[in-house]
Amino acid sequence: MSENPVSGRSPARGDLAHIGHVELLTPHLEQSVRCFTDVLGLTVVGTAGESVHLRGESEYELSGLKLTASDDAGIGHLGVRTRDAQALARCTAALAANGVAGAWTEGDVGHGPAYAFRAPGGHLVELYWETERFVPESPAPGMPPLARDRLGRRGGAGVDVRRLDHVNLLAPDVARSASFAREALGFSLYDEVVEDDGSVSGAWLSLGPRPLELVYALDRLGATGRLHHVAFWVDTREEVLRAADIFVDHGVPIEVAPAQHTIGRSFFLYGFEPGGNRIEVTTGADLVLDPDPPTRTWTAAERRRGVGWGTAFPPSWTEYGTPDVSANLHSL
Amino acid sequence: MSENPVSGRSPARGDLAHIGHVELLTPHLEQSVRCFTDVLGLTVVGTAGESVHLRGESEYELSGLKLTASDDAGIGHLGVRTRDAQALARCTAALAANGVAGAWTEGDVGHGPAYAFRAPGGHLVELYWETERFVPESPAPGMPPLARDRLGRRGGAGVDVRRLDHVNLLAPDVARSASFAREALGFSLYDEVVEDDGSVSGAWLSLGPRPLELVYALDRLGATGRLHHVAFWVDTREEVLRAADIFVDHGVPIEVAPAQHTIGRSFFLYGFEPGGNRIEVTTGADLVLDPDPPTRTWTAAERRRGVGWGTAFPPSWTEYGTPDVSANLHSL
Amino acid sequence: MSENPVSGRSPARGDLAHIGHVELLTPHLEQSVRCFTDVLGLTVVGTAGESVHLRGESEYELSGLKLTASDDAGIGHLGVRTRDAQALARCTAALAANGVAGAWTEGDVGHGPAYAFRAPGGHLVELYWETERFVPESPAPGMPPLARDRLGRRGGAGVDVRRLDHVNLLAPDVARSASFAREALGFSLYDEVVEDDGSVSGAWLSLGPRPLELVYALDRLGATGRLHHVAFWVDTREEVLRAADIFVDHGVPIEVAPAQHTIGRSFFLYGFEPGGNRIEVTTGADLVLDPDPPTRTWTAAERRRGVGWGTAFPPSWTEYGTPDVSANLHSL
Amino acid sequence: MSENPVSGRSPARGDLAHIGHVELLTPHLEQSVRCFTDVLGLTVVGTAGESVHLRGESEYELSGLKLTASDDAGIGHLGVRTRDAQALARCTAALAANGVAGAWTEGDVGHGPAYAFRAPGGHLVELYWETERFVPESPAPGMPPLARDRLGRRGGAGVDVRRLDHVNLLAPDVARSASFAREALGFSLYDEVVEDDGSVSGAWLSLGPRPLELVYALDRLGATGRLHHVAFWVDTREEVLRAADIFVDHGVPIEVAPAQHTIGRSFFLYGFEPGGNRIEVTTGADLVLDPDPPTRTWTAAERRRGVGWGTAFPPSWTEYGTPDVSANLHSL
Repeated sequence: MSENPVSGRSPARGDLAHIGHVELLTPHLEQSVRCFTDVLGLTVVGTAGESVHLRGESEYELSGLKLTASDDAGIGHLGVRTRDAQALARCTAALAANGVAGAWTEGDVGHGPAYAFRAPGGHLVELYWETERFVPESPAPGMPPLARDRLGRRGGAGVDVRRLDHVNLLAPDVARSASFAREALGFSLYDEVVEDDGSVSGAWLSLGPRPLELVYALDRLGATGRLHHVAFWVDTREEVLRAADIFVDHGVPIEVAPAQHTIGRSFFLYGFEPGGNRIEVTTGADLVLDPDPPTRTWTAAERRRGVGWGTAFPPSWTEYGTPDVSANLHSL
Repeated sequence: MSENPVSGRSPARGDLAHIGHVELLTPHLEQSVRCFTDVLGLTVVGTAGESVHLRGESEYELSGLKLTASDDAGIGHLGVRTRDAQALARCTAALAANGVAGAWTEGDVGHGPAYAFRAPGGHLVELYWETERFVPESPAPGMPPLARDRLGRRGGAGVDVRRLDHVNLLAPDVARSASFAREALGFSLYDEVVEDDGSVSGAWLSLGPRPLELVYALDRLGATGRLHHVAFWVDTREEVLRAADIFVDHGVPIEVAPAQHTIGRSFFLYGFEPGGNRIEVTTGADLVLDPDPPTRTWTAAERRRGVGWGTAFPPSWTEYGTPDVSANLHSL
Repeated sequence: MSENPVSGRSPARGDLAHIGHVELLTPHLEQSVRCFTDVLGLTVVGTAGESVHLRGESEYELSGLKLTASDDAGIGHLGVRTRDAQALARCTAALAANGVAGAWTEGDVGHGPAYAFRAPGGHLVELYWETERFVPESPAPGMPPLARDRLGRRGGAGVDVRRLDHVNLLAPDVARSASFAREALGFSLYDEVVEDDGSVSGAWLSLGPRPLELVYALDRLGATGRLHHVAFWVDTREEVLRAADIFVDHGVPIEVAPAQHTIGRSFFLYGFEPGGNRIEVTTGADLVLDPDPPTRTWTAAERRRGVGWGTAFPPSWTEYGTPDVSANLHSL
Repeated sequence: MSENPVSGRSPARGDLAHIGHVELLTPHLEQSVRCFTDVLGLTVVGTAGESVHLRGESEYELSGLKLTASDDAGIGHLGVRTRDAQALARCTAALAANGVAGAWTEGDVGHGPAYAFRAPGGHLVELYWETERFVPESPAPGMPPLARDRLGRRGGAGVDVRRLDHVNLLAPDVARSASFAREALGFSLYDEVVEDDGSVSGAWLSLGPRPLELVYALDRLGATGRLHHVAFWVDTREEVLRAADIFVDHGVPIEVAPAQHTIGRSFFLYGFEPGGNRIEVTTGADLVLDPDPPTRTWTAAERRRGVGWGTAFPPSWTEYGTPDVSANLHSL
């Protein structure tokens, strides 16, 4: 990945810091909020209009998840924080130089002005720098205030997830989406799946050493702007196992029981929140410390056996996304 | 351990099935109840007079813990279930034959008539057969009713302990207390600590393959009827580690941070509930499958290094029990 | 379950202590030994003729597994230890009274005289009392000798399993096999699966509080004497997950990746050792403390969704056993 | 942290990628190698002169640890990889501009030319870009080659650590060492401990989101160039607990049994390798995703209670480092 001047067509590497939050759309706002609080263990930090903002205990920002009432499930937008104000300026300039139209918003609960644009694939992305850091009302009685401040409370409700981890988006042209993420946004491409016909069906991208932060998977219905899943982090594999028990106890449908990914070596559990969006509870991914690793190219055959222990994925895995446009297609 | 006829001075081996519940006394009933529910994760199943009955999710009986308001902390009584009605009759006959005075009570929340007596060392013990099995109001939506019934709900509050595990009693004459437990009650003695002068300072007793169910430790103040601690079971070491975080977050004082016992190979965390009683969160003990294992005799020196990784215990460990009679002694 | 006099048609409850060892037959002895040592982590403690005896680190007896060269895979015999010499006498008398023919053997590596007979279903069972307890050559340098002696060494090769846990046998008439186990051998029946036509297709039996020690499953090919699997214990779910990685690294085929049973709440991993026998790595089962629990009867429908998180089992699970007689049937 | 031009007195942020390896000195090379292979689980990848190079299974480079025979224990040097060749040039130019003398070496087993200099505090640091990536001889039989390549083998010997994690150096002037690391090398300072007199006694520095990669602690003997400890990563807390058992079994002295740090929220075990150097097995630290977080300043009082569960550290913790110069001081 090449280095670029400040005002060029690409941002400098490191200009984007991390994905800070995601907005999920849900036709059942109340039930979705209850699932993300009582089952996943997030905390409501604010409401505005038809939206509810939530936070995981180890997130330094005020909110990592925004739930918005909508006719259909899906992703509203993706919020990416830049590393400083200059980086935000460089990124917006680079987008303009690349002919990507965007517009400033005045910000939202938890963060300042954001530059919004649609990435290839149709997903809305917002870049922002100014943020509101979470400040706990009172420290834990038995812990130094600083520790409480930084580390978050344990033993919260349900799964007690720590923070937003990554987002997996469905796109009709994965190669194009991944190229844009690399060239216009400065993501690194760590892994990709190339089908026998040479087309790319999966791309694992990251802004740092985490092996995946933004994933593009092929939208086999050819639709745009759809979501495959949003993943939340826990610290241990035991917590993922416990999450499966909790999903069962609370009636949250499990799509794939806890098992091991090969790509990224993350450990996972997939289910569906009441709005219909797929959610993942995940942990354990190996960090990519190599500053310039060669992209790993997986064949489709390798990918089919792609989870570490041979776990088979159900057909819904490759077929279902939100919004669920398959009904529309079937009715044509 | 010898076998005995039905009407002899000893019960048949296996006549006592397991310790079913323990009654803790607390000068701060409300705070104690809150700690056992919000922090430990037990559920209140009934109240009667100045007592509150609680249950862990994997207990098959209605209640494994009774909290009773009292001027001082300590243990009210220990409830031991027999394996059937005949076994209860054999045990009471054997106690009478051994000159142990006792009396029948009409039962309590969750169980039927009980035969109450004081064991050497001054602790009140109750034997009972009839019990009320817990029946969940409704099965978990995603689990077969039988599984829900047997296995209990996960993801409850706080530490989410599963059940009462064992009780550690302070006694002025450990050897005598242990002998009584073996001969009059049918316990097996798996481990003991013998001091350099030949006296016994610790005895680990069990009614089955669990390596410890009733422990006697020397009361160095020479008092009778005192409690060292009550232990609650979780299924994994990760949950013990998580429990330590939760104790810190809720202000429950930690006496000994999570570490490994050598005797029994159990993993532990010690703290104090608001009434002043020491509590343990524990897991992992190796089962003793040998039906007639030789008792392991530990020297005091071996015991001093007795935890598996060299963890040092604070002085309170050997000095403090409930009720805390040291103040009285100091004021003499 | 009724109590019986010493010379009756049934043994007294508790006369059998636990399953002490199992003999597996293998057409590839050398590879099987290598798998059980290098991958599972057992240690060879002796060889005799075409057999190799192995031991897990927390087994108190000399050997829990005997591997014997044979034309076909399968189970050679099951060794069950009695609780004392009198119990062995009672059991053999009861078998004779029930018309079960048996014969004494002079013992084997690690144990004394054994009474051998075929249980309904065609499996060879041996009852024994005299055993050789394992004595380590030298204690661990950093641990008291007694602890070393009792607890076993950690960090052994591969999965580092602790001990034999349970055996699952295929039988053409599960109800009859289970009845015999209860009435002639004193097992408790904790769970059973009853098909829609009233036939029993699975029975979970135990000699103590472990929820399963001997399981009978329906042999759908109607054969006798076959094995479904042998299970080995590890102490934590993390070790089961690690075992899956190790299986992959060593080329041990995984049949079912780590997941959660509902019956017994045990956590599992299934694979095949080089001889063709199915093996399980397991942990976590809840103890059954109730001395006389009602048998849980599962419907076939409940059983089909019987693993705790909805994990689907492959067809091989219900079809394959050792010896693999399906080829013979197919060639008819 | 400010951004700098290419030829200025500071490198650009991100110019240093990560600490790639560390060289430990040992007066008992053979025993040290045996400890790092048999107990820690590293693999020897090369020897040269009096040095042995080792590798953890998830390290992408050929070697993360070099052991060199020496009269005294201690640290030989610290190897830091730059993010590309230009970054290496910028860094060396900045060092020269800051008056830091250095010299090029022609490289070593596993990496190319390195620029060596002494940082304030007296420790030798080498910067390098060219590296040799590890290529496995053959993939695991049951895993796609790419996965095997990236993820490493599981079930290796002993603790089976994954990779070098961080280095803790003793320095006579922590504030000065930390300033240099920030300004001349581009480290971020995430946490520091400030004593009541205003002096800095601890500084936690990182080149990325890991909360600590290089730590400076006060050398209370005023010596220079000494080592507090080197830490190796495992993926789960269970593996740290298992490591403690393995240390005991192998006679590796445990200094502090497994417990929880507050700073960084890492989970740890400390012991001593046969050469006398302190080693840590660690996992679990929270990532710092904030690109520009305020440094947390801990008071000495907060630090004294600084481990998460109140675990007390022994006096050796603050007194001992390698080489152990205390004997010299005592003999004055």
